[in-house]
Amino acid sequence: MCTKRNIYLQMKSLEEARRIVLDSFGDRLMPAEIVTAPEAVGRVLAEPVAARLSSPHFHAAAMDGIAVKAQTTFGAHPSRPKTLQIDRDAFFVNTGRVLPAGTDAVIMIEQVQRLDDRRIQIEAPAFPWQHVRKMGEDIVATEMLFARQHLVTPYCVGALLAAGRFEVKVLRRPRVVIIPTGSELVEWHGKPQVDLRPGQAIESNAYVLGKLTETAGGSYERLSLLGDEVGRIADAIRKAVRDADLVMLVGGSSAGSEDFARGAMEQQGEILVHGITMMPGKPTIVSRVEGKPVFGMPGYPVSTIMAFEQLVQPLLARMLGQPPFQRPTAQVLPTRKIASKLGVEEFVRVKIGQVGRRLVATALPRGAGQITSITEADGIIRVPAHVEGLAEGQPVTAELLRPLAAINQTLVAVGSHDNTLDLLADELRAQAAHLSLSSSHVGSMGGLMAVKRGVCHLAGTHLLDEADGSYNVTYIRKLLPDLPVRLVHLVMRDQGLIVPAGNPKGIRGIEDLARNGVVMINRQGGSGTRILLDYRLKQLDIPPERIAGYGNEEFTHMAVAAAITSGAADVGLGIQAAARALGLDFIPVVTEQYDLLIPEVHFETAAVQELLTVIRSERFKTRVADLGGYHTERTGEVLL
Amino acid sequence: MCTKRNIYLQMKSLEEARRIVLDSFGDRLMPAEIVTAPEAVGRVLAEPVAARLSSPHFHAAAMDGIAVKAQTTFGAHPSRPKTLQIDRDAFFVNTGRVLPAGTDAVIMIEQVQRLDDRRIQIEAPAFPWQHVRKMGEDIVATEMLFARQHLVTPYCVGALLAAGRFEVKVLRRPRVVIIPTGSELVEWHGKPQVDLRPGQAIESNAYVLGKLTETAGGSYERLSLLGDEVGRIADAIRKAVRDADLVMLVGGSSAGSEDFARGAMEQQGEILVHGITMMPGKPTIVSRVEGKPVFGMPGYPVSTIMAFEQLVQPLLARMLGQPPFQRPTAQVLPTRKIASKLGVEEFVRVKIGQVGRRLVATALPRGAGQITSITEADGIIRVPAHVEGLAEGQPVTAELLRPLAAINQTLVAVGSHDNTLDLLADELRAQAAHLSLSSSHVGSMGGLMAVKRGVCHLAGTHLLDEADGSYNVTYIRKLLPDLPVRLVHLVMRDQGLIVPAGNPKGIRGIEDLARNGVVMINRQGGSGTRILLDYRLKQLDIPPERIAGYGNEEFTHMAVAAAITSGAADVGLGIQAAARALGLDFIPVVTEQYDLLIPEVHFETAAVQELLTVIRSERFKTRVADLGGYHTERTGEVLL
Repeated sequence: MCTKRNIYLQMKSLEEARRIVLDSFGDRLMPAEIVTAPEAVGRVLAEPVAARLSSPHFHAAAMDGIAVKAQTTFGAHPSRPKTLQIDRDAFFVNTGRVLPAGTDAVIMIEQVQRLDDRRIQIEAPAFPWQHVRKMGEDIVATEMLFARQHLVTPYCVGALLAAGRFEVKVLRRPRVVIIPTGSELVEWHGKPQVDLRPGQAIESNAYVLGKLTETAGGSYERLSLLGDEVGRIADAIRKAVRDADLVMLVGGSSAGSEDFARGAMEQQGEILVHGITMMPGKPTIVSRVEGKPVFGMPGYPVSTIMAFEQLVQPLLARMLGQPPFQRPTAQVLPTRKIASKLGVEEFVRVKIGQVGRRLVATALPRGAGQITSITEADGIIRVPAHVEGLAEGQPVTAELLRPLAAINQTLVAVGSHDNTLDLLADELRAQAAHLSLSSSHVGSMGGLMAVKRGVCHLAGTHLLDEADGSYNVTYIRKLLPDLPVRLVHLVMRDQGLIVPAGNPKGIRGIEDLARNGVVMINRQGGSGTRILLDYRLKQLDIPPERIAGYGNEEFTHMAVAAAITSGAADVGLGIQAAARALGLDFIPVVTEQYDLLIPEVHFETAAVQELLTVIRSERFKTRVADLGGYHTERTGEVLL
Repeated sequence: MCTKRNIYLQMKSLEEARRIVLDSFGDRLMPAEIVTAPEAVGRVLAEPVAARLSSPHFHAAAMDGIAVKAQTTFGAHPSRPKTLQIDRDAFFVNTGRVLPAGTDAVIMIEQVQRLDDRRIQIEAPAFPWQHVRKMGEDIVATEMLFARQHLVTPYCVGALLAAGRFEVKVLRRPRVVIIPTGSELVEWHGKPQVDLRPGQAIESNAYVLGKLTETAGGSYERLSLLGDEVGRIADAIRKAVRDADLVMLVGGSSAGSEDFARGAMEQQGEILVHGITMMPGKPTIVSRVEGKPVFGMPGYPVSTIMAFEQLVQPLLARMLGQPPFQRPTAQVLPTRKIASKLGVEEFVRVKIGQVGRRLVATALPRGAGQITSITEADGIIRVPAHVEGLAEGQPVTAELLRPLAAINQTLVAVGSHDNTLDLLADELRAQAAHLSLSSSHVGSMGGLMAVKRGVCHLAGTHLLDEADGSYNVTYIRKLLPDLPVRLVHLVMRDQGLIVPAGNPKGIRGIEDLARNGVVMINRQGGSGTRILLDYRLKQLDIPPERIAGYGNEEFTHMAVAAAITSGAADVGLGIQAAARALGLDFIPVVTEQYDLLIPEVHFETAAVQELLTVIRSERFKTRVADLGGYHTERTGEVLL
């Protein structure tokens, strides 16, 4: 171990790295192949397409009525109607049918009076070509329908078929081979479930990259997982470049002792880039093997996604003659300062909400290992390398991952975490599919501050007033004295001590936290649970310094439960639902009140009223009760 | 013929019709089916998905280095380094690997000094959990990953696999059966090419609807083309509703004598809507057969697309628990007044261009039969029923069919039509794929006016000064005296008389237009070709009244050629390329100068400069010469 260490080549900026990729591999379009017009949807035309047929390819009636030669109708007037002979001067036609020879106009059937079997009468003249779709009105044979490199849409199929272009030449999809590596990874495939040993993880990046490849217009083949042997990886690269247009090796691309990607690439070709001043995505490799692009993609899921979107996708677009993909953007206001490292271009994932007239953005966790930081994101804010961070409330551009229309239909909850909020989000989709609920967990006090700063529609809160045992109202009066707000009761919930199954350390109450050999996991300052703990410790006269682990903080009940499951701690204060979810034991301490604080300005909006309807529904209450440790007798009551 | 006529039921507004559709059929979600996580991309979750595994599901090193128990490092300092014993106090780990039992922190390898085989030295303490990805940091088992009705993205695949959700329940795609009808239609399928008889057209609507269905999340089956017999159509509907979730009958939906759709639907079920105050799309039918939605889609291609997008797509979205699809929008300025009928909601297709700081929109042809009016559109402007029209230059909302980023990279040409502009558009894609060129044909004078009003980047023009035989400059000086502009020579081109192959009427020159028995087709007023004709007629002292067909106008050379091919006219003035394209004869009259007028403010932009590079390229000139009737000796010269 720790024998040989790769080091990064001179770090490149993202812009430099992208230029190297496009300059090295972006000079050739994909070869062409022939497909039928309907199959061409989503594909790129390899050559300009000209019409073979005109449309219409004859003069066609545009109305139901009679076809006439306009000249024969001149002079007709209500006072001097003209009589025309059927099948000599006038011919019945229906919309879309060919105009009989010698005619050049159609009179609508409503304006024709039938005299008998052989004659009709009209009271107004027709002008030439009235109610006629002339030959070539839409498409003239030989005219160019679409320029080359046009992206074919469903609409285009109509034009192609009408113009007699039943088959077209399109650019072949780039063939991408994806080689996942890593001896710590296991394949999920074919397994309904999997029991992981410590140290193992499911290989998922190659599938994500494959699906992103398809979205970018390519096709992909994922090879079976390889271990960390340079020789086997090099061999796989050598075989892959034969047929592939592009290869992605996943994992092992950083500069550590077990990172074999670069070694394998060096055996087969030439390294062009190793190390990019972007975050996530730094340990990305670009190499050339037999003239083909071979990328070393980072192993962290968000890094690999960013490396794909910033380097691989632009190359695929270029191979398909398309302009680089650009997401729609919007100006957003960060709800808090976003720090960033100088010299690194950072991609910060954010939740975005339309709160009143402001589009506010809350940063998600920054770790490159957290896939949920991108699955939960509504947008990405780029912090350029020369900027040290973004100030709160200063407008900044975000690339949107969800359409603004969907973001506008999202209720933004910022505050205390409770499992019933996830359940509420799900029940909202079930009962009001056009709405969604997005939650950020910053504790009860954080929620009150978010309401004060106008960055959310609602805040979950359970703040105990030590003086009278009441919840929330005292804090609201004190911290938001001038802001009109409403308070809606959500649930009563049991808080207590979460301990491993079987309670190995025999914990019975708060007083045991100070016992020797007991390590706790705490919640962050400002959370209702932390206030509750501190209140109880004061009542019991236990100074926090006496409690091991008091300084280790987590942000959610589930994270506390996870810390206990993992053995990182022996005990933590949390809700019963979290203990139950992970099969842990629970010692009740108190039943507390969990409410939703809603600024008056949002309370009467349709979205909030629909949310309240869901909260008051029997289905929601039943599902809450099923979680265990909750009481819903007064759920939905308006307290303020 | 003309025996029985359906009449519309009471016309519904689009909003009423959509409400009837959603109220009648929008109450049930699709049933669920199980797919693997990668297959779930683009699908909708049928139930909330909770994690089965935590991620990481162990405490993992987040750096390459040594794992330690933080406590054992306390007190380390550069002046008092601490020595740790390998494999007792300190364990080498690589990123992603499991933390050895008893350790709770990682020290980066860069900060570790190796003393010998058994000992290392550190100069700073580790704090607990530094450089550790704690169990459940990303995902905690049992936590909800996604609410029901979540649309699965490639990113989601990463979260699903990491969380051990290898298979998920998704809503089955709605099965849509599409039944094309119409005895005038022919099938293209399996034919490399087809010779249409007059009165025939290719059936294309059913394919367009099928591809739109796929885009909306459904799957489709297109039945073979049926004739116009009510019985067979009714039979097809009866069979289709057995397995389908939704049926679209295409064609025959209006109120004419051959429109059998309603009759067939009445036989099998109940008509809910027939006739909607929208344009295009009026003759749409909504019916219920065996509880299933059966739509009668109009036969005109743009009508059928609008009916799909306004009525069928919202229902498919509802069946999949999705909010209604909304296109991104932008505020645009109409370049001319857009008239509209009171009482009808109109969908006007427009080309959109970013010209300077303004986003300008030019209406495309309004006919429901013109598929190219939607394939060429960048956006759609809705004119509500209570509005009679839109004023020029008044900002109005357009739904975007192409991303703004692509629209911003489009050069807008408004002016005279010439076939070399199509060729230029194609060559531009070939040589500068990020750019495109969009042309609207309004004649040379229209082009000058468009430049004056600032609604285009360039205008094609060939305006003859009768006084000195020069082109364009006189008009520019007179009409745009204060606007700084540049003039770039594009081509010299032969204008002449286009006549049917073999020249059956023996036409030799302009003087023959006034001959008895000769009918001409003219170009619109303000076009350079019209000015040329009028100039020649004046020279020859021929009054226009003496020319049959002088009052019939077309807007392009190709349309003039098409009119002659169809027999609608005997002769017209136009360019040789148009005659050659349709196999017509050509009698040269004059060689004229065709230039591009470019406002100074746009001339130095990168896009225009790239366009000039393409114009000056040998490849472009060679392709122009191949069209016939063009001369490129001075192509690309800057004249002003």
